[in-house]
Amino acid sequence: MADKPVFDRIALIGIGLIGSSLARAIRRGGLAGHVVACDSSEEVLASVERLGFADSTTSSVPEAVRGADLVVVCTPVGTFADIGAAMRPALSPGAIVSDTGSVKQCVVRDLGPCIPEGVHFVPGHPIAGTEHSGPEAGFAELFDGRWCILTPPPGTDRAAVDRLSELWRACGAMIEVMDPGHHDQVLAVTSHLPHLIAFTIVGTASDLGEHLQQEVVQFAASGFRDFTRIAASDPIMWRDIFLNNRDALLEVSQRMQEDLARLQRAIRWGEGEEIEQRIRRTREIRRRLIDAKQA
Amino acid sequence: MADKPVFDRIALIGIGLIGSSLARAIRRGGLAGHVVACDSSEEVLASVERLGFADSTTSSVPEAVRGADLVVVCTPVGTFADIGAAMRPALSPGAIVSDTGSVKQCVVRDLGPCIPEGVHFVPGHPIAGTEHSGPEAGFAELFDGRWCILTPPPGTDRAAVDRLSELWRACGAMIEVMDPGHHDQVLAVTSHLPHLIAFTIVGTASDLGEHLQQEVVQFAASGFRDFTRIAASDPIMWRDIFLNNRDALLEVSQRMQEDLARLQRAIRWGEGEEIEQRIRRTREIRRRLIDAKQA
Repeated sequence: MADKPVFDRIALIGIGLIGSSLARAIRRGGLAGHVVACDSSEEVLASVERLGFADSTTSSVPEAVRGADLVVVCTPVGTFADIGAAMRPALSPGAIVSDTGSVKQCVVRDLGPCIPEGVHFVPGHPIAGTEHSGPEAGFAELFDGRWCILTPPPGTDRAAVDRLSELWRACGAMIEVMDPGHHDQVLAVTSHLPHLIAFTIVGTASDLGEHLQQEVVQFAASGFRDFTRIAASDPIMWRDIFLNNRDALLEVSQRMQEDLARLQRAIRWGEGEEIEQRIRRTREIRRRLIDAKQA
Repeated sequence: MADKPVFDRIALIGIGLIGSSLARAIRRGGLAGHVVACDSSEEVLASVERLGFADSTTSSVPEAVRGADLVVVCTPVGTFADIGAAMRPALSPGAIVSDTGSVKQCVVRDLGPCIPEGVHFVPGHPIAGTEHSGPEAGFAELFDGRWCILTPPPGTDRAAVDRLSELWRACGAMIEVMDPGHHDQVLAVTSHLPHLIAFTIVGTASDLGEHLQQEVVQFAASGFRDFTRIAASDPIMWRDIFLNNRDALLEVSQRMQEDLARLQRAIRWGEGEEIEQRIRRTREIRRRLIDAKQA
């Protein structure tokens, strides 16, 4: 916990699950003199006021960022170019601009050109979330013990990275610094592909006849349920992730399909040993997860 | 709970997660005069004796089933033909033979011909489990509030089905009676396909370069972790399920691939509306799960 606020005025743009959790964690730690919550939805702002985790609210991006020494954009990544253009004229010299987007190369592409000289740009991605969305779903403990990946462009001021790291650590997170392209590759495997598959498989089930579908719901406990939980995540956020990490995602999903075809062929031709061997290999990764305390 | 034992002597063949949980649930409810635990592994039998949830142990199938009024085969379905042949001469008239296999048409095929005149055959499948295996992993509460599907062949004695249902209910389960072919179709969607995909995707990740793989483990919390948990299940059991529900599984996985190809195409060509729409549909199934209290 910080002895004094890490920032004077933090502007959070987009108050969904992540933005509202960050606001709550900042409040929990006394990490900002003032938190301004900005969202384009009046309904969301009314929720924020009722829930009381921000010091002020606004629907105006320039108003939110004016005088802020930290701006964190917490909207779906597809909105970043517009938000960047809106904030640009109002950013204060010396401020840090960051975000919580799940793809990082596109953030460099869309937000990077909107950062004026003298403002620090430190994109970030907290690896945390639930299948729920919106400001009501957030909670202060969301980032406790989770990783937050920062992807500062080459030449970024070290002090700015350190200060943002201090905030995230005080919010409970652990920091990793990474190249944005590498981030996007890693997350394509660990997050974007699993979500793509979960959305697909739940969609396949919902195309079944009505009678079969009822039983899919009734007997979901046998594995399907975990997929529906993953697939319950926010549609706009995921649409934007898929569109903005296209190359890495298509590459890894192509690999997955080749591996699936191999396993299907083994099933068709009754190759028990091949099937067993491929299943056994997956236990090794699970064991490593348990060793790394990530299971 | 039963006032008196439902069966005099229950023989459990195969003492893994399911067999040992069933033994514990039977003991919890006082549902059998005697439970004999049979397993081909001396190590497993030593565990059973140490854990003390059975009244006797044996590695001999005929010895186990002799005098039993209920036999439940709890081994991987690939073993059923051999076990059926071994038990046949020792089965007592009036006994009920059941099982806990995850595929049911193959059980009718492999175990059915081994049931002598005067013995009742009521295949079963408790929809319960964890990613752990073996007799140490079992627990008496595994079936509490879960479905157990029974697939008695046409003409099966109604009293035998009722008596087996009584046992499962006393073990905490809810009963559903179903045609074996329909069971296999439903489970192909709710269980076998999700496992096939989980094994595949975790395998794809384990083929990545060592550096990337470390980070897959480090950032698994972003979705991948759920797949590794599903994929940690027993390799022999799953090999046998895949081989014995081949047609239904290949059919539904083919459908899934077509749906995946459609979503991939939409990603490649930047069709945001199509992607969003397909993601939104999956929420409907999730909502129905929550309504059905299966989430």
